[in-house]
Amino acid sequence: MFDQVSIIGCGLIGSSVLRRLKKNKSAKKVVSYDNSKSVSEIVKKENLSDQLAANLSEAVKNSDFILIATPLSSFENIINSIKDNLKPGSILTDTCSVKTSVNNIIRKLKIKNSTWIPGHPVAGTENSGPNAGFPDLFQDRWTILSPDKNVKDAEIKKTVLFWESMGSKVKIMSVEDHDKIISLTSHLPHVIAYNIVKTVMGSDEKTKNDIIRYSAGGLRDFTRIAASDPTMWKDIFIDNSGLIIDAIDKFSESLDEFKKAIKEKNSEKLLQIFEKSKEFRKAIIKAGQDTDKPDFGRK
Amino acid sequence: MFDQVSIIGCGLIGSSVLRRLKKNKSAKKVVSYDNSKSVSEIVKKENLSDQLAANLSEAVKNSDFILIATPLSSFENIINSIKDNLKPGSILTDTCSVKTSVNNIIRKLKIKNSTWIPGHPVAGTENSGPNAGFPDLFQDRWTILSPDKNVKDAEIKKTVLFWESMGSKVKIMSVEDHDKIISLTSHLPHVIAYNIVKTVMGSDEKTKNDIIRYSAGGLRDFTRIAASDPTMWKDIFIDNSGLIIDAIDKFSESLDEFKKAIKEKNSEKLLQIFEKSKEFRKAIIKAGQDTDKPDFGRK
Repeated sequence: MFDQVSIIGCGLIGSSVLRRLKKNKSAKKVVSYDNSKSVSEIVKKENLSDQLAANLSEAVKNSDFILIATPLSSFENIINSIKDNLKPGSILTDTCSVKTSVNNIIRKLKIKNSTWIPGHPVAGTENSGPNAGFPDLFQDRWTILSPDKNVKDAEIKKTVLFWESMGSKVKIMSVEDHDKIISLTSHLPHVIAYNIVKTVMGSDEKTKNDIIRYSAGGLRDFTRIAASDPTMWKDIFIDNSGLIIDAIDKFSESLDEFKKAIKEKNSEKLLQIFEKSKEFRKAIIKAGQDTDKPDFGRK
Repeated sequence: MFDQVSIIGCGLIGSSVLRRLKKNKSAKKVVSYDNSKSVSEIVKKENLSDQLAANLSEAVKNSDFILIATPLSSFENIINSIKDNLKPGSILTDTCSVKTSVNNIIRKLKIKNSTWIPGHPVAGTENSGPNAGFPDLFQDRWTILSPDKNVKDAEIKKTVLFWESMGSKVKIMSVEDHDKIISLTSHLPHVIAYNIVKTVMGSDEKTKNDIIRYSAGGLRDFTRIAASDPTMWKDIFIDNSGLIIDAIDKFSESLDEFKKAIKEKNSEKLLQIFEKSKEFRKAIIKAGQDTDKPDFGRK
């Protein structure tokens, strides 16, 4: 597919891409870079790439496809370090969960020679780091690509094929639509999960121990999401703060209405909310986005 | 253990108890009752009880241990129908998720002959009905018992042994403590899960389809909880409305503080929240309340 592929950032996402590339044997050469020594050591030990680049400019040299899979806050520095070393005709893409800001950085820094195609694989687990990665992380999950209108179809097609080779389904969507949808399906749920944990942790010590003990009543589900990578999520919340605050406001408005129904003991209204939720879950399972096994099939 | 056990209500919880009793062969005779014909047919077809009682007074006749596993709203009617037919020396217990109100009903209706020991197995899945039950539902989960102070130890001990025979761990706790803790570990998470689904469903049709498609970014976890039995949860929200509204208010207060940190792009504050959440998840896993497999081990 590509002669040489570079992966910058080898955490959960980057190392999963490396593992799948190795499994597929689809690239002639795979170069990797991570600014953490301990991460690079794991990549080396697990033999996940053909070359561990010593720095960012070496990481992109001669590469046909460059994927940036780092937290948002390092994006600008990385682009600054690689923008003059990109191979003519190469494709530059990323995995960030917010697209407006990375797009603005690319516009501001004016990359040369390479075609920029923003990407976001909607996949992941609560674990982070290279040991958490696995080759099937993207299997049957969606990847969203948000190229500018002037990007050639052939370049988009190559990027689509790359993600399809990862097992992913691909959807093309504008940056604006992407950021709005993801603020609802991913960012808002993370805010809420963090906040429910924050709320119950505000209890006294004795109560806190009981809360841990009886968390199987529902709470434990939220704690999984709230265990996601802190740096990544700090960056996302700061970067997409406008849309996330809009989503929080919508949530609060809805919660006030819900609270009113509970206060007024409005059976009909409550049943209506719950029945609709049940239908929504069914639609998600039907769309292949979750297992239908009770409790997610966990033991 | 008991010569005769009666299970009233044969949904997820009741049918799981019936299945475990059958597996254990610990009672000489198991009687069951459900006011739904279709539920009773499944109990009969699956051969889950020795006798399907024709009515509530027949259901409790000669029984040494009576477990009520129905939605809260039917509790008063059931007690009214059985209170004069209870066997002297028998134990009456339940599985309701709120204890103050059932306790008040018992006090008001003055049951005769039987010892009342309120109980709550903190276990369940998002599915409901007798087909959703399984014998290991209570395995390694906690059951909370909240007997009055004047209840004899021997009666409590028998009830503890019953739940231990279900595979459960048992904790004795006051009604007040129970309702407070469960409002945080179970009721609040359900409110929030329902509300996040309610919030995103408020979007237009096109957006809604995208939301289903990209729900794997976090949202799908919430939809599982929000698919729980509507009648049961309607009853709980109405019954425990005071404590649930307190919990919602605490949640909203915490959310305002969180929103402020996002608005002010306060990295330090955000990182602090996320790191603490990660620790809390670890404590829950350490306490044996959840799996440590990423994504709950779901496929």
